[in-house]
Amino acid sequence: MNPRVTVWNEFRHEKSDPEVAAIYPDGIHATIARALGEHGIEARTATLDEPEHGLTDEVLDATDVLVWWGHLAHEEVSDEIVDRVQNRVLNGMGLIVLHSGHGSKLFRRLMGTTCNLKWRESTDTEVLWNLAPGHPITAGLGEHFIIDQEEMYGEFFEVPTPETLVFVSWFTGGEVFRSGACYTRGTGKIFYFRPGHETYPTYHHADVQRVIANAARWAAPEYSAVQKFGNPGPIMVG
Amino acid sequence: MNPRVTVWNEFRHEKSDPEVAAIYPDGIHATIARALGEHGIEARTATLDEPEHGLTDEVLDATDVLVWWGHLAHEEVSDEIVDRVQNRVLNGMGLIVLHSGHGSKLFRRLMGTTCNLKWRESTDTEVLWNLAPGHPITAGLGEHFIIDQEEMYGEFFEVPTPETLVFVSWFTGGEVFRSGACYTRGTGKIFYFRPGHETYPTYHHADVQRVIANAARWAAPEYSAVQKFGNPGPIMVG
Amino acid sequence: MNPRVTVWNEFRHEKSDPEVAAIYPDGIHATIARALGEHGIEARTATLDEPEHGLTDEVLDATDVLVWWGHLAHEEVSDEIVDRVQNRVLNGMGLIVLHSGHGSKLFRRLMGTTCNLKWRESTDTEVLWNLAPGHPITAGLGEHFIIDQEEMYGEFFEVPTPETLVFVSWFTGGEVFRSGACYTRGTGKIFYFRPGHETYPTYHHADVQRVIANAARWAAPEYSAVQKFGNPGPIMVG
Amino acid sequence: MNPRVTVWNEFRHEKSDPEVAAIYPDGIHATIARALGEHGIEARTATLDEPEHGLTDEVLDATDVLVWWGHLAHEEVSDEIVDRVQNRVLNGMGLIVLHSGHGSKLFRRLMGTTCNLKWRESTDTEVLWNLAPGHPITAGLGEHFIIDQEEMYGEFFEVPTPETLVFVSWFTGGEVFRSGACYTRGTGKIFYFRPGHETYPTYHHADVQRVIANAARWAAPEYSAVQKFGNPGPIMVG
Repeated sequence: MNPRVTVWNEFRHEKSDPEVAAIYPDGIHATIARALGEHGIEARTATLDEPEHGLTDEVLDATDVLVWWGHLAHEEVSDEIVDRVQNRVLNGMGLIVLHSGHGSKLFRRLMGTTCNLKWRESTDTEVLWNLAPGHPITAGLGEHFIIDQEEMYGEFFEVPTPETLVFVSWFTGGEVFRSGACYTRGTGKIFYFRPGHETYPTYHHADVQRVIANAARWAAPEYSAVQKFGNPGPIMVG
Repeated sequence: MNPRVTVWNEFRHEKSDPEVAAIYPDGIHATIARALGEHGIEARTATLDEPEHGLTDEVLDATDVLVWWGHLAHEEVSDEIVDRVQNRVLNGMGLIVLHSGHGSKLFRRLMGTTCNLKWRESTDTEVLWNLAPGHPITAGLGEHFIIDQEEMYGEFFEVPTPETLVFVSWFTGGEVFRSGACYTRGTGKIFYFRPGHETYPTYHHADVQRVIANAARWAAPEYSAVQKFGNPGPIMVG
Repeated sequence: MNPRVTVWNEFRHEKSDPEVAAIYPDGIHATIARALGEHGIEARTATLDEPEHGLTDEVLDATDVLVWWGHLAHEEVSDEIVDRVQNRVLNGMGLIVLHSGHGSKLFRRLMGTTCNLKWRESTDTEVLWNLAPGHPITAGLGEHFIIDQEEMYGEFFEVPTPETLVFVSWFTGGEVFRSGACYTRGTGKIFYFRPGHETYPTYHHADVQRVIANAARWAAPEYSAVQKFGNPGPIMVG
Repeated sequence: MNPRVTVWNEFRHEKSDPEVAAIYPDGIHATIARALGEHGIEARTATLDEPEHGLTDEVLDATDVLVWWGHLAHEEVSDEIVDRVQNRVLNGMGLIVLHSGHGSKLFRRLMGTTCNLKWRESTDTEVLWNLAPGHPITAGLGEHFIIDQEEMYGEFFEVPTPETLVFVSWFTGGEVFRSGACYTRGTGKIFYFRPGHETYPTYHHADVQRVIANAARWAAPEYSAVQKFGNPGPIMVG
């Protein structure tokens, strides 16, 4: 069964930078949502400048997995919405954080660290190595795939050790990066996926699209009835 | 899509011990295969005394996930079949090891340790606590379930640290045990699940059956094209 | 080389509750600091009602490992001090969080989850099982130790999966709990240790004291020169 | 306190290949033992062609940590000695496996997988990135170090997921590799460290030497009294 996905984008670069608009005329979110559709997954979109950033309770009630792209405007996301989304994740909603979303309030909140890293906008090629063959997120991929030009992200990446390290990237300049990383927080599954600088056509890349679709299926919630707190009487009586 | 499961049993207790035969008249394997069927998963069976222990290449070609129950006769399993099954697991076949299967050649081979533990056949009750709500193996379960009478298994359990610790058991006598443990070896997924002493009707327990069915779906192989060795030329040329 | 430890306590129960004062006349912090001293580790103390909660930059400059006990007054800890201590941990200071400290702003911030759990003040006995023999935190311990009376904490404990699960507790009432849990955040090491309800003499227990002393040595910082962010030029030039 | 280390080497390349002999005139083992000495750690050596491969019970009784280098002659190591060393590791002896030791009987036995990988002898430069700042094995290192020429090892490396991933290597040809990996098996600690092809002066590299010395201290046994199996009576009586 396919999850119901909401793709969230701050949607600012596309409006102010013609170079980005040329690559993503309807916004990064539209490109990703369309790609999910081609993988058989229905996706709606939401953006920063909508009321409640497009993330009303009604929208989240109908969202199994949220995809997040942000960069320029992390601080414009209201704490109230961050609280709301964090709470949803802890209670089972899947979350896929893309590229510069590493610096979002939401991701930093869920990780407990700065999520800082090194970066360089240059002429690097990126090779993503599949370190988790057999994992649902790598289904249908080969042992590596190449993105001809991308922004470099380098270690040390200040995040908790991933529960599963799915990809490690190689960059021309000599750097490596943990580019695909799985976490569980509460009952929610989180996947961080590195590629996607706004000035490159990364979200048009077939393998990148496949990874996001696979991750959406992996991150969809499973339901078990676990109460997380309380003050119960004993189960066993001696 | 449901995996094709083969349930393997050494099938000796049931023939020699009337107490066990009363609980599992057709063998533990038949009870488990029937339960999988009720969960919509087709399962065949194989037993120690069949030619090649019932695990021919033809059978394994049609097996996505193998379930393993053994106890008295671990040493009668031929090294050739252990090699064959280990190789299948490393190349993607799922494996569910039940109860006393912790001492099997196959599980010890895949773990690299003795897999020793403490045990006691007595009047213990077992409470299994769900430590991985949100994980596919606990779908549909509550926060714990109880087996009124079971053999005690106690720590220290000499296995590698599980990648995911799904259940921890409580026993009346004061012991705890890591009762549900996930591993990846090569591209294959392995789940160890503790309950199932032959003198108790454990495999008739609805929650135990649900766990095995969930684990079979979780352990089913995902296909990606990864070559594990070789002597390739460079991908990037400076 | 022994770390320099600061033991922080909110120090409220001891002033208002004669039952607690009878067990810890100088405060929980004093008992723990004294025990560390007996293990050869010098420890100072700090408490909530001191200026800056006793955690000035001068104090933290001289602290390799911080021990934290809080319960009633989590919300009285100022966000500024939480920011300061979190930043120290991410840059290498060790942190040992005790018992009800699971609900502190600091621990919740570093974990990214609610850190909720179940609890019961009753007549439970606690058996702590050593699941990490060979780990520095269990040096000198046996396979388990018993606390005759303690508050029960039960799963599900909403924290990220521990990097190392050191102890699991058994309680009379049928519950289990992940009672000793290691994390790394940034370059800092964190150990959560469950025991220590204020109405029981838990911090006078020899094995509890040994665990805290071992954990202090384990959590002491190691120094390597890693820059966590920046915008560097390439290392390799093709 | 410093561990007592034994450095084991198959010591064949150095006798048959003048190029290797020029780099390691007394053998790889002698170079490593000397480097450990310069880090304040006393090390003895043992080699394949000694009786019992130099790994008698007397030698192992005086060994806290064993370092292993092998390549050409993995199959000449007797199963009896592999059994003996595996048993020592499961009971607390540290083990550092270097470079082509990934293919040794001992390492494959402890991992439960083939430990296969990709390789290329060419003109690659290796950059090792520190992914575990704050870990004892990286004490005193910077964020990366460079080996000007080395054999390439590439993913997929068929080993269990490391408990701690300490280093990831970058190679000129576009590959990455998990070059420093920690495991616990039984009560023993294991560190796999990639560099060290016999035709390059890798073990004369100051950072490589520092890593091996740090790893020896990290892998030294901690003593706790845990019985791994048995059939005990209950601890708690209801």
